Amino acid sequence: MQEQILPAEGKLGILLPGLGAVASTMIAGVIATRKGLSKPIGSLTQTGHIELEEGSKDNYSLIKDYVPLAALEDVVFGGWDIYEDNIYQAATHARVLDQRLLDSIRPELEVIKPMRAVFDRDYVRNLDGKFIKNSATKWDAAQELIKDIETFKKANNVSRVVIVWTGSTEKYLEQSAVHETIAAFEAGLKSNDVNIAPSMVYAYAAVSQGIPFINGAPNLTTDIPAIVQLARKTKTAIGGKDFKTGQTLMKTIVAPGLAARSLGVSGWYSTNILGNRDGLVLDDEQNFKTKEVSKLGVLEDILRPDLHPDLYGDLYHKIRINYYPPHGDNKESWDNIDIFGWLNYPMQIKINFLCRDSILAAPIVLDLALFADLAQRAGMYGVQDWLSFYLKSPQTQNGEQAENDVFKQLNTLKQVLRTIKQQDTQELPALDLTKETEPAI
Amino acid sequence: MQEQILPAEGKLGILLPGLGAVASTMIAGVIATRKGLSKPIGSLTQTGHIELEEGSKDNYSLIKDYVPLAALEDVVFGGWDIYEDNIYQAATHARVLDQRLLDSIRPELEVIKPMRAVFDRDYVRNLDGKFIKNSATKWDAAQELIKDIETFKKANNVSRVVIVWTGSTEKYLEQSAVHETIAAFEAGLKSNDVNIAPSMVYAYAAVSQGIPFINGAPNLTTDIPAIVQLARKTKTAIGGKDFKTGQTLMKTIVAPGLAARSLGVSGWYSTNILGNRDGLVLDDEQNFKTKEVSKLGVLEDILRPDLHPDLYGDLYHKIRINYYPPHGDNKESWDNIDIFGWLNYPMQIKINFLCRDSILAAPIVLDLALFADLAQRAGMYGVQDWLSFYLKSPQTQNGEQAENDVFKQLNTLKQVLRTIKQQDTQELPALDLTKETEPAI
Amino acid sequence: MQEQILPAEGKLGILLPGLGAVASTMIAGVIATRKGLSKPIGSLTQTGHIELEEGSKDNYSLIKDYVPLAALEDVVFGGWDIYEDNIYQAATHARVLDQRLLDSIRPELEVIKPMRAVFDRDYVRNLDGKFIKNSATKWDAAQELIKDIETFKKANNVSRVVIVWTGSTEKYLEQSAVHETIAAFEAGLKSNDVNIAPSMVYAYAAVSQGIPFINGAPNLTTDIPAIVQLARKTKTAIGGKDFKTGQTLMKTIVAPGLAARSLGVSGWYSTNILGNRDGLVLDDEQNFKTKEVSKLGVLEDILRPDLHPDLYGDLYHKIRINYYPPHGDNKESWDNIDIFGWLNYPMQIKINFLCRDSILAAPIVLDLALFADLAQRAGMYGVQDWLSFYLKSPQTQNGEQAENDVFKQLNTLKQVLRTIKQQDTQELPALDLTKETEPAI
Amino acid sequence: MQEQILPAEGKLGILLPGLGAVASTMIAGVIATRKGLSKPIGSLTQTGHIELEEGSKDNYSLIKDYVPLAALEDVVFGGWDIYEDNIYQAATHARVLDQRLLDSIRPELEVIKPMRAVFDRDYVRNLDGKFIKNSATKWDAAQELIKDIETFKKANNVSRVVIVWTGSTEKYLEQSAVHETIAAFEAGLKSNDVNIAPSMVYAYAAVSQGIPFINGAPNLTTDIPAIVQLARKTKTAIGGKDFKTGQTLMKTIVAPGLAARSLGVSGWYSTNILGNRDGLVLDDEQNFKTKEVSKLGVLEDILRPDLHPDLYGDLYHKIRINYYPPHGDNKESWDNIDIFGWLNYPMQIKINFLCRDSILAAPIVLDLALFADLAQRAGMYGVQDWLSFYLKSPQTQNGEQAENDVFKQLNTLKQVLRTIKQQDTQELPALDLTKETEPAI
Repeated sequence: MQEQILPAEGKLGILLPGLGAVASTMIAGVIATRKGLSKPIGSLTQTGHIELEEGSKDNYSLIKDYVPLAALEDVVFGGWDIYEDNIYQAATHARVLDQRLLDSIRPELEVIKPMRAVFDRDYVRNLDGKFIKNSATKWDAAQELIKDIETFKKANNVSRVVIVWTGSTEKYLEQSAVHETIAAFEAGLKSNDVNIAPSMVYAYAAVSQGIPFINGAPNLTTDIPAIVQLARKTKTAIGGKDFKTGQTLMKTIVAPGLAARSLGVSGWYSTNILGNRDGLVLDDEQNFKTKEVSKLGVLEDILRPDLHPDLYGDLYHKIRINYYPPHGDNKESWDNIDIFGWLNYPMQIKINFLCRDSILAAPIVLDLALFADLAQRAGMYGVQDWLSFYLKSPQTQNGEQAENDVFKQLNTLKQVLRTIKQQDTQELPALDLTKETEPAI
Repeated sequence: MQEQILPAEGKLGILLPGLGAVASTMIAGVIATRKGLSKPIGSLTQTGHIELEEGSKDNYSLIKDYVPLAALEDVVFGGWDIYEDNIYQAATHARVLDQRLLDSIRPELEVIKPMRAVFDRDYVRNLDGKFIKNSATKWDAAQELIKDIETFKKANNVSRVVIVWTGSTEKYLEQSAVHETIAAFEAGLKSNDVNIAPSMVYAYAAVSQGIPFINGAPNLTTDIPAIVQLARKTKTAIGGKDFKTGQTLMKTIVAPGLAARSLGVSGWYSTNILGNRDGLVLDDEQNFKTKEVSKLGVLEDILRPDLHPDLYGDLYHKIRINYYPPHGDNKESWDNIDIFGWLNYPMQIKINFLCRDSILAAPIVLDLALFADLAQRAGMYGVQDWLSFYLKSPQTQNGEQAENDVFKQLNTLKQVLRTIKQQDTQELPALDLTKETEPAI
Repeated sequence: MQEQILPAEGKLGILLPGLGAVASTMIAGVIATRKGLSKPIGSLTQTGHIELEEGSKDNYSLIKDYVPLAALEDVVFGGWDIYEDNIYQAATHARVLDQRLLDSIRPELEVIKPMRAVFDRDYVRNLDGKFIKNSATKWDAAQELIKDIETFKKANNVSRVVIVWTGSTEKYLEQSAVHETIAAFEAGLKSNDVNIAPSMVYAYAAVSQGIPFINGAPNLTTDIPAIVQLARKTKTAIGGKDFKTGQTLMKTIVAPGLAARSLGVSGWYSTNILGNRDGLVLDDEQNFKTKEVSKLGVLEDILRPDLHPDLYGDLYHKIRINYYPPHGDNKESWDNIDIFGWLNYPMQIKINFLCRDSILAAPIVLDLALFADLAQRAGMYGVQDWLSFYLKSPQTQNGEQAENDVFKQLNTLKQVLRTIKQQDTQELPALDLTKETEPAI
Repeated sequence: MQEQILPAEGKLGILLPGLGAVASTMIAGVIATRKGLSKPIGSLTQTGHIELEEGSKDNYSLIKDYVPLAALEDVVFGGWDIYEDNIYQAATHARVLDQRLLDSIRPELEVIKPMRAVFDRDYVRNLDGKFIKNSATKWDAAQELIKDIETFKKANNVSRVVIVWTGSTEKYLEQSAVHETIAAFEAGLKSNDVNIAPSMVYAYAAVSQGIPFINGAPNLTTDIPAIVQLARKTKTAIGGKDFKTGQTLMKTIVAPGLAARSLGVSGWYSTNILGNRDGLVLDDEQNFKTKEVSKLGVLEDILRPDLHPDLYGDLYHKIRINYYPPHGDNKESWDNIDIFGWLNYPMQIKINFLCRDSILAAPIVLDLALFADLAQRAGMYGVQDWLSFYLKSPQTQNGEQAENDVFKQLNTLKQVLRTIKQQDTQELPALDLTKETEPAI
């Protein structure tokens, strides 16, 4: 962290690979909010408070008054997609927001047009877009992305850029040799290594230019040594992975509560139905596996079966996602939780969450973009695990076990904001929040 | 707090006014645990861990190894009831625990017999027990209770006693003149003032003798100036009110999660069905009101509509309890939560909790008894609001707003345990945890 | 029944006492359907088929092609209300239908204006409309209603009229002397007897003029000897009571299924939340009682505890309705059904019905109006219990036990349609379907 | 059908291939019922009534008093299994019934021991039993089964036998050449054709000897021309397939109700969790497919999208079954049903059925066995589609579309019972209920 945070001067470009339901809902909402047509509910940066001291019940500040975030008025949007729809069209097709609202801001939405995407159908078999780059190599694709970003910055007179991945879940991929060093990775880009996913090409393009990159899908993307090392080298903030929206959000709320009361858990069955593009992609087993791995991990860390074998040692955790077109973007989850209490007597909790995928994800995208920009201006680089509050499967700095308890995550986020604040107001000597001075990998 | 905590030497008597389903389930469970027949799941004192420092993920201790709690082996049970059933009979009638378990510890249960109760049917119209004291005045009743306690101590060779109210919800009562000072209260006892509920007679008897008293029902009981002042005078630990078991427990888990994510809440409908004695008592509107007031308060403090009028300013909160004999002690709740997110789009959460009233309450009774005894030995007197973790409507020391967020409550409880530990190991100068040196009322 | 059914010539006026959410939703839907803007889903008369012979799987006809129903094109709407809103305004306030749809048919809706209502706040304490008749006696009120009907017929060039009560639930009322004969009732009208509810004044006005009257609320209304006798005298079709929409519909679907399989039922708990005008009215205990009585009866007749005491002898049935403004017209029910099977092992069914009150009721109003008109033209007078398919608490002809099983009700309805058809095509000698030749009461 | 029904004289042997949870629960229940320890709830033959005339509300008879069924006292049990456990052991392992009940009838259960099973692990990969026949060919296996049956009959002094398949779901199989004629099938038995499943070997053995055979799993088994022709030739009653227990039962109750009311259905998502042997078998995709096909068909026939394209033309139906050990035999289903009504407004129904697999299946096994025996004695041979009331995917006589509406199924069953009764009492000339005089295939 630097001694002082760079001010949020000029415009902030938020670039989104994947301009579908989530991205268009977020963009439309910010524009509608700027015009006074609606409220940015669900966004901690816009509506949330922070206790000036931990535990205080009386001294509060709005977070956006507390730390120097970019203002919504200063934000400009852009991105890439495999379909050529502008944001008005994309939002219309997504059928998330009321058409009357979209019509009332149609001109502002229509001017936002995608750039051609880097895409490889082998990674997402259930989609088949045509608006894609025709690059000879993945290296070339990365260079074209870098050029796209430059063009965007100039065209929109933007002083800073952050990138948040709002694209699809890619097929399951495990870390391999090409991911291990910057050199191997760059060689792989040039040799079109099959283990370099499209999302990694975006991440490389961003991080190589010092542009913060946050990964909202469960893809590996930034969670490989090559990108982590590159982020340190270029002093860039990165983070991921997988927006924590519906069922997993609820799970990381309820599980800490059960643990607090020392109630045992013998089984947790989670099913999801959704009918949007995300659901279609996850209907492919290869892609579902990526998501499943991301979702399965959260209970272990919260419940600590290692400490409480009698309570959580035999927990059976099963997660299913089903493509169900009748619901469109209205994702719905049903959880059956088998718990047990005094003398091992069983009890059950059923949670049915009738949520909206993009409505829950949109403010997360906004918050992550604004906080990533803040981190970058504060000189915090490398993995921003204090943003794990927003993420299903948080990437950690040095491979530590992630924190998944949403309440502990929020405490950490607020603690970091307090430290940034103190730093900014020079109350404290500079702290190294990044803990990234020694290469750990 | 004293410089050193008195050790947990000798036997601890746990006396329970109300030897019904909750009390018999707790007692049977402790005995079964002592005989290695079952496990005290749900009890923080028996199975829970504490991080040696706040936030630590690596350094843990079992709570019972950390602070000097009474051991289960040293606990002796007794109590009062309006029915003459011994604990074996009471547990059998309650139909909470498997009969085979009860039969396997029948001798140990049969020896525990109730003493005659102080009872006034005007306070609980739906019950009609015959095993009650026939005292001329409430003052006389209190003296008889004091004698009961002495007799119990001698008969069981007990060195310390705590009392936890496990009796019924009484009819709704507001604080009035007779509750305001010790003198007025004692005069009221002698004049049989109608505003002195039976539970207050128990509380007076206990506190006047320096015996900790915890109130597990939503009754006023200890939450009146007279008893608070008496507790200061006699340096006695008190606490209440209303065990936080099923629906409210879930509510104080989920609401902080929604608040964390800045999700709005427009409505929260909670219904309960239960068929035990508690359900029968609450079928009387007068008694339900006492419970309703206790349950309704929890959202306000957690969601803070004063800070977030856009999110929680219009919250409509409705709670219903229905007597439903087919379920017996298997209390079940169904909550419909209307939330809204980005651009005010509505979503819904439905939670169906198939719980067991006594199974959830039993470990709470045990923990409260053991912690109250610890507090007393540590010289902490007056209202023990650090035990609010277990209570639906926590009584606070000087009338401050209560904390209802179950996670913040647990943090507070652990922080107090750490302070006690430090005190006990003489690492710190004596702290006055009670904050009770200056009379506040 | 006559030898031939009078043809559906000319226009049919459908007059509705109570032009609130249900009525305006029905009217808007019919108009939108006529303009090709939407489809009359949920209406048996418009979309349903009939097997030409019972049990046939191959020979079907659309019901509206099978019997001579009035066409939607020939229907004209009117009614009374205690608020002066026209139907466009009423539908807008009801917030049931999309505003864009309402705007697209605004002129057609705006011309439909209420006539001043007969209202007595003593019967519905939670409403307070001002657009009411100021009649000296209930007799005068009835005469004014008759005049209203005449005026409406002339103004709209209508050849036939039916009336369907879509107004509120009135307070609970039991049959008394004034209801027992036509003479006593007419005397009561003149003496302003307190036991004559407003809905009865409407029923009297209609039936005295030979105008069919169907009661969609649980009010007594037509279910008194005076009105039944009057209906016979004036050869008028009547029917009621209480539209069978959400929870009770589901109950009369599921209960026959459990009975079919000889599964026992030990408990059935039903709770409802709704936030529309209906919910507000039912928040008054006096009005809820009327509804409760209507809803409670349905299980007895379906499950037959008299025949199956082992299965249904101990059934505990509890129903609750709660006013819950956040849901508006989106009525929601939650049922917990405790069943038991082989060797009395318990199982549970939970049904959560997220329905829409007016959307479910609207096609019922339409069907009842069209079928009542058909019955009247077919010479079927008195209580039309073959329409019990649509009703929660069916009024029967001679006080027989009602049929509540929705499948048996539908079979009966279809059987009557087949008989009407045969009559109309002169295949059979005239049958007296009304069974009303001999006064039964 | 014969002119008179053969009386139920002597003992009836019920032989069950598959002596697991379902079979042992049924057997234990019958024995406990005979000893007056419990009641055969859920069994139509034991507790159900029949209206003496269709639609009558007054004239009823117990079904078991109406037609000459075998009495429970005259039933003897036996069967085959791949594990050597006797029924006491099997029931104990199944953990369906209370151990105290099992202990109270232990001697009666222990004497029932399995015969070695015909098994082929290729058909059920997730099981691996050792107690199996070591036959050279499937033909030999069939002969050994025939010998087993003879031995059983003699040992138990049994006059009649019926066989009900209570074994596992086999892997998905489509009809092929070997199934088409008796000759081809017998040749296949001898040549060990891979397309002859173990269940078919049992069916062949039974039907070749004139022993009724009912198939309780979704396997093809009797649903092939070879077995149907054989049944005609040997005048044997056969039927299947797949016991209709939890979710599908509920589906065939609710769907007719929605159709009755002309409510549209856009989606139906059904998920199941269960942890018994059945769940383990279905965890294999090959076996799940067999089950899925059986479960998917029921809606089409009930809703008739061909007649109502606006209502059911776009219905999306999805079914999932998940192995979930924490629930054991306590199978649980959750259904989300997306319906729409007036003007296409969407509504939702959620049904959570906490059922018990074997408790629901046991009385079905008993009823099917007793009714199959009745049919055989009444001279009704070939496919008994009047028993479709009990089956998920009813086999029909000549390949007609099956009836799945549980209410129509029950009507048919009762109508056949009335015809049998009339036949038995010689009120009518002999009817050919079997419709099987002309070979149809």
